Amino acid sequence: MTDSQPLEHRQGSEPGRHNLDPHIDRYAARTAGMTASEIRALFAVASRPEVVSLAGGMPNLAALPLESLSGQMAELIAEEGLVALQYGSAHGVPALREQICEVMAMEGISGHPDDIVVTVGSQMGLDMVTRLFCDPGDVVLAEGPSYVGALGSFAAYEAQVVHVEMDDDGLVPDTLRAAIDATRREGKRIKFLYTIPNFHNPAGVTLAVERRAEILEICASNDILVVEDNPYGLLGFDGQTYPALRSMDPDNVVYLGSFSKTFASGLRVGWVLAPHAVREKLVLAAESATLCPPTLNQLVVSRYLSTHDWKGQIKTFRENYRERRDAMLSSLEQHLPAGCTWTQPDGGFYVWVTVPEGVDTKAMLPRAVTARVAYASGTGFYADGFGSRQMRLSYCYPTPERIREGVRRLAGVLESEMELVRTFGSVTTRAVSGPQFPGPDTA
Amino acid sequence: MTDSQPLEHRQGSEPGRHNLDPHIDRYAARTAGMTASEIRALFAVASRPEVVSLAGGMPNLAALPLESLSGQMAELIAEEGLVALQYGSAHGVPALREQICEVMAMEGISGHPDDIVVTVGSQMGLDMVTRLFCDPGDVVLAEGPSYVGALGSFAAYEAQVVHVEMDDDGLVPDTLRAAIDATRREGKRIKFLYTIPNFHNPAGVTLAVERRAEILEICASNDILVVEDNPYGLLGFDGQTYPALRSMDPDNVVYLGSFSKTFASGLRVGWVLAPHAVREKLVLAAESATLCPPTLNQLVVSRYLSTHDWKGQIKTFRENYRERRDAMLSSLEQHLPAGCTWTQPDGGFYVWVTVPEGVDTKAMLPRAVTARVAYASGTGFYADGFGSRQMRLSYCYPTPERIREGVRRLAGVLESEMELVRTFGSVTTRAVSGPQFPGPDTA
Repeated sequence: MTDSQPLEHRQGSEPGRHNLDPHIDRYAARTAGMTASEIRALFAVASRPEVVSLAGGMPNLAALPLESLSGQMAELIAEEGLVALQYGSAHGVPALREQICEVMAMEGISGHPDDIVVTVGSQMGLDMVTRLFCDPGDVVLAEGPSYVGALGSFAAYEAQVVHVEMDDDGLVPDTLRAAIDATRREGKRIKFLYTIPNFHNPAGVTLAVERRAEILEICASNDILVVEDNPYGLLGFDGQTYPALRSMDPDNVVYLGSFSKTFASGLRVGWVLAPHAVREKLVLAAESATLCPPTLNQLVVSRYLSTHDWKGQIKTFRENYRERRDAMLSSLEQHLPAGCTWTQPDGGFYVWVTVPEGVDTKAMLPRAVTARVAYASGTGFYADGFGSRQMRLSYCYPTPERIREGVRRLAGVLESEMELVRTFGSVTTRAVSGPQFPGPDTA
Repeated sequence: MTDSQPLEHRQGSEPGRHNLDPHIDRYAARTAGMTASEIRALFAVASRPEVVSLAGGMPNLAALPLESLSGQMAELIAEEGLVALQYGSAHGVPALREQICEVMAMEGISGHPDDIVVTVGSQMGLDMVTRLFCDPGDVVLAEGPSYVGALGSFAAYEAQVVHVEMDDDGLVPDTLRAAIDATRREGKRIKFLYTIPNFHNPAGVTLAVERRAEILEICASNDILVVEDNPYGLLGFDGQTYPALRSMDPDNVVYLGSFSKTFASGLRVGWVLAPHAVREKLVLAAESATLCPPTLNQLVVSRYLSTHDWKGQIKTFRENYRERRDAMLSSLEQHLPAGCTWTQPDGGFYVWVTVPEGVDTKAMLPRAVTARVAYASGTGFYADGFGSRQMRLSYCYPTPERIREGVRRLAGVLESEMELVRTFGSVTTRAVSGPQFPGPDTA
């Protein structure tokens, strides 16, 4: 794949480099699987100002009331500095855990503050849950495609991901049943189903309400835990919410939440709500990982929730993102060549695009960047090399005008690519050997 | 051990609880080893105001200039809020990594900013290094005693700890050689030596400068990586520093640093300086763990370093801690019964006390807390059940007056205990089966 070389500044992935690493024989088995993802490799290039990046998942913080936050931060240090700057417990600040219960109540969850563990973003929650449950070789069921950061945590614990198909209504129950049966026939142990029911990353779809009980029933009757990741649930464009899986089966669901998309991602404040016995283990795991989450950040969020109109702020975010979603969907409709299809998100950050047969989104990416538009190619969202005809487009960060310009450029690239395919046949890419280690979803 | 029951609110450690956990058969193998440490169990009791806690490792933040920090925080959000509140890279903020090089230069280290990874406290650095290097069953060599949080990370990756003896000059080179030979004779694979050369936690000793090259040579010639943990290095009471192991063998040392003791622990900002190839892997591991460290906290530290007299602040901390160390050593001298011995720290937070034979510090702890003084019993600092005649006393947090009162109370408890031993013989405790999972060192 010579033509993607310019993007492949993969740290440590060049054979020459590996041979130069005197520590190469010392690493753990899990470390062998750690190679930088396509998204990570893209980071530097896609962040150049002339490139319209539809690749990353950065929230649009320009909508935040910085002046008032600035004053609050000053008050926090002046009034509670000795607490904010001191160690806390691995469990998290009690007042914040109570407030988190109020946030979760908006999606029908009645949790107890004691069953919440505050984490360094919900990425850490994912990592801790995997640490608790997965031995090497254990299977995690996950939607196909799935969140790139989750695949990274699963790979770090040498868990094997089995993807389950989705349609426009999310995870397909029959496909889940089939995946469970097939995996068990191979003699493998399934530890949990990892699912993003609302405004899926990267697929942009939502699990239909009428499927939720069925999915939970399939898991419960097969003795499989459910890990529900819900960073976007309050970002439904009509203000709509859906009943959380956790609200329907508290004993068999571990719930991951985050303030990254409803307040500020750079604070890295997320949480896990878990059945009581699991929560106890989670606190111990979190202690060994970071001792405690930053106290300052927890108090910043707590003060924000108690003094700001945080629900109003979420409404502002939602309206912001709806406008951008509209810009993206209308320009996809207007510009994308025939043969392309895409999902219709009702909330969240992402549209999932499927391109005509013969076009390879990973091979096309360097040409797209040359045409000053970036996206996340589909293979990064699968642990099994699938996804070469897919791409994720984010509308969260660029302005509507930039989104339209980006889609126009992408359409041009796609048309040349399809022309090439018609002339020379399929443009394939090198097969991905094993799961890549995904990078930050922050480009 | 009936008499220690009141302290043992160990979450999940009661057999009855375990049986009630419907998820018990789902956990990974590593999770079986997760039980709360003695220090954690003590947390709630020892933090009551009437108890003088000599147990925890909380820095004395009262010496910080809160008013000026408050103003800085406000400026940071007003001027750089969109960056501070946004995702960053897993590598860490470049400006901060450059400043960290200046901090490390004070101990003779010349590192490149590119070889630094910013972590959520150095606990996360420890966890990431263990993630990179340790498969289950791999051996980590560590001083005996060693930092409780490090033992927690090693246990989380199912690494086995082999302790190496120390004396008043730190790690003993001949003992290190013997431990390597004995471990290899058993056919085990040694991954690294974990060492805290300066003002050791919990032992309070410093590795003699003349031993440093020898320790490094032993490790290099045996193909064993060195992990140098140095949170206290700038807290030498006479302003003295020692050459970092990293400065003497950059290619074979992974260095862990932290702002928790020189600035503010609640920010959770630490770092790893690693050989280049290892650093590349560390960034990937860190991405899967937390995506990125909190941007806000990194910018807070960066602004503090560039606008405050941070070296002057460290001097203030040092003088503070020296006064407390003096209070502790003089009251130990004055009050502790004959037969007790202790180390003489020249910096850092801790004194390590050995009590007369027959006294069991773990069994004695509940009686000490009843007498309104708390300490950390020695067994928590060993992975092998050793340490029942030892205890760690911290002088970092209480005022000199409280320290003197605490030692007086402790002396009284010790005297009754020794009286009991003389009358009834040794008071033994239940043997610890396997390494306990240590808790936060923050009580």
